[in-house]
Amino acid sequence: MAAESFKSYLTGRKKTVDSALQKFLPTSRTRPSTIHEAMRYSLFAGGKRLRPILTLAACEACGGKMERAMPAAAAVECIHTYSLIHDDLPCMDDDDFRRGQPTSHTKYGEGIAVLAGDALLTIAFEILAQTKPAPKCRYSVADFVLDLADASGSRKLIGGQVLDLEGEGQDVQLSPTQLRYIHESKTAALLTSSVRLGGMAANATPMKLQALTDFGYSVGLAFQIIDDILDVTQSSEQLGKSAGKDVATDKSTYPAMFGLEKSRKEATRLTRKALKAVGVFGENGERLEQIAHYLLDRDY
Amino acid sequence: MAAESFKSYLTGRKKTVDSALQKFLPTSRTRPSTIHEAMRYSLFAGGKRLRPILTLAACEACGGKMERAMPAAAAVECIHTYSLIHDDLPCMDDDDFRRGQPTSHTKYGEGIAVLAGDALLTIAFEILAQTKPAPKCRYSVADFVLDLADASGSRKLIGGQVLDLEGEGQDVQLSPTQLRYIHESKTAALLTSSVRLGGMAANATPMKLQALTDFGYSVGLAFQIIDDILDVTQSSEQLGKSAGKDVATDKSTYPAMFGLEKSRKEATRLTRKALKAVGVFGENGERLEQIAHYLLDRDY
Repeated sequence: MAAESFKSYLTGRKKTVDSALQKFLPTSRTRPSTIHEAMRYSLFAGGKRLRPILTLAACEACGGKMERAMPAAAAVECIHTYSLIHDDLPCMDDDDFRRGQPTSHTKYGEGIAVLAGDALLTIAFEILAQTKPAPKCRYSVADFVLDLADASGSRKLIGGQVLDLEGEGQDVQLSPTQLRYIHESKTAALLTSSVRLGGMAANATPMKLQALTDFGYSVGLAFQIIDDILDVTQSSEQLGKSAGKDVATDKSTYPAMFGLEKSRKEATRLTRKALKAVGVFGENGERLEQIAHYLLDRDY
Repeated sequence: MAAESFKSYLTGRKKTVDSALQKFLPTSRTRPSTIHEAMRYSLFAGGKRLRPILTLAACEACGGKMERAMPAAAAVECIHTYSLIHDDLPCMDDDDFRRGQPTSHTKYGEGIAVLAGDALLTIAFEILAQTKPAPKCRYSVADFVLDLADASGSRKLIGGQVLDLEGEGQDVQLSPTQLRYIHESKTAALLTSSVRLGGMAANATPMKLQALTDFGYSVGLAFQIIDDILDVTQSSEQLGKSAGKDVATDKSTYPAMFGLEKSRKEATRLTRKALKAVGVFGENGERLEQIAHYLLDRDY
């Protein structure tokens, strides 16, 4: 019963996020139509909306109305989608399928795929700047932009992809510290910003914002470890993308470095840490807790 | 004498902008170093700094201290540089040289070039969000971000590149209206935002902001027409990039559509229009006028 209600919560939130994105994005008939079609193609390709759902849940955990966090929620999803489009390019991970559908460059060609990614990155900040903090909120629009730009920038999201790119196909194995750094920058940073922005929209106290930061970081790392595990244990059909790719490209991953069992234990440990961090929210933090459990136990 | 003093003004401003960029950009030793090296390689490849100089000049024309416009000036140059890196990619215009030096993908490979562009686009908003509008300024950081994101987004800067990409190598000639639209979106939009952001940093009245908008638009179109003319009349050595490329790729340009003489006349007419627009600033607008003249008469 509780599981059923969480499932319908996720479905409902996905719909809410989808309709916000529909509203923020130019229609596919806006000229030049190719670019707007391509932006929408990837944005509405069936993503789970994990990051924006976390943004809204973090806002509510801090006692805010989720509407205030809607621009931030839409913005993090645009950043996530742009990073997938560019990561899938032939000059990067060279993936033809994602979520069971042709990737952007497969469908539109490389030039348009690069530009669609650029456009989603740009519109993320345009949407985020439409945030209206409550009167006397301790965070300004500048704080929102700085937080997201930092998480998405050359030291974090982009930096992680650089290391990933440099590490692929190399004989030299990464050290555990280097692997942790890639996961932190490539996955945990944007997840952390997703919950932080939600908290900021609710005018979270510095103490609560710290709790969200700790939660996002631990959940983000656990999420990436589970992703690496699923790449080994699941079929391409189940994942909707090419499975077994990490091994094929000699990518350093948790399972490759520590084995499946130890990796799963580490994901469990991190999830427990995340749950502890949001204890400070009491009952208000229940959705965040459910999401952390769900991410650990997922099989796709 | 006046010419000499204008030349040293440009040199001085270029230095000012360069040291602001040095300060805003992570050092090339910041990890991961590859991406920061690549960002700096393109950013410090000898650009004229036209857009940031216009930002600072617009701020001063409106009676502001140029320091307030420095984040905006640095941000527009980061946007400009990112757009060059991505435009030069093999899947776009496929240019191996720019300003006499190997382009980013030639030097670092395509993957890093895509990411260096992404990183410069991202840091542009991070820098812009550091703008500190004067107390009681009618423009907030949100207004700055919205202006730049709009100019750089899928309807303008990126949209123009989409049309350019779609038009190349096609037998169908563009109409003059379509060509104008490409120039407006690909070149004039960012130039217009460059002067608008300068004005906004100086708390420009709506009337003065409109004058800057008109100025930026006309100067931007004139600038692009002159660029197309120089592609026909100058050698690659003089331009520091592949000359004659527009003809070779069957690109629609002003000279191709109207001939050199008519194109030059149109650039002159637009420059006159720009000069008229900044008449409202009186003596304070002198630098903007000089820049407009200089852009019309340049031979590189």
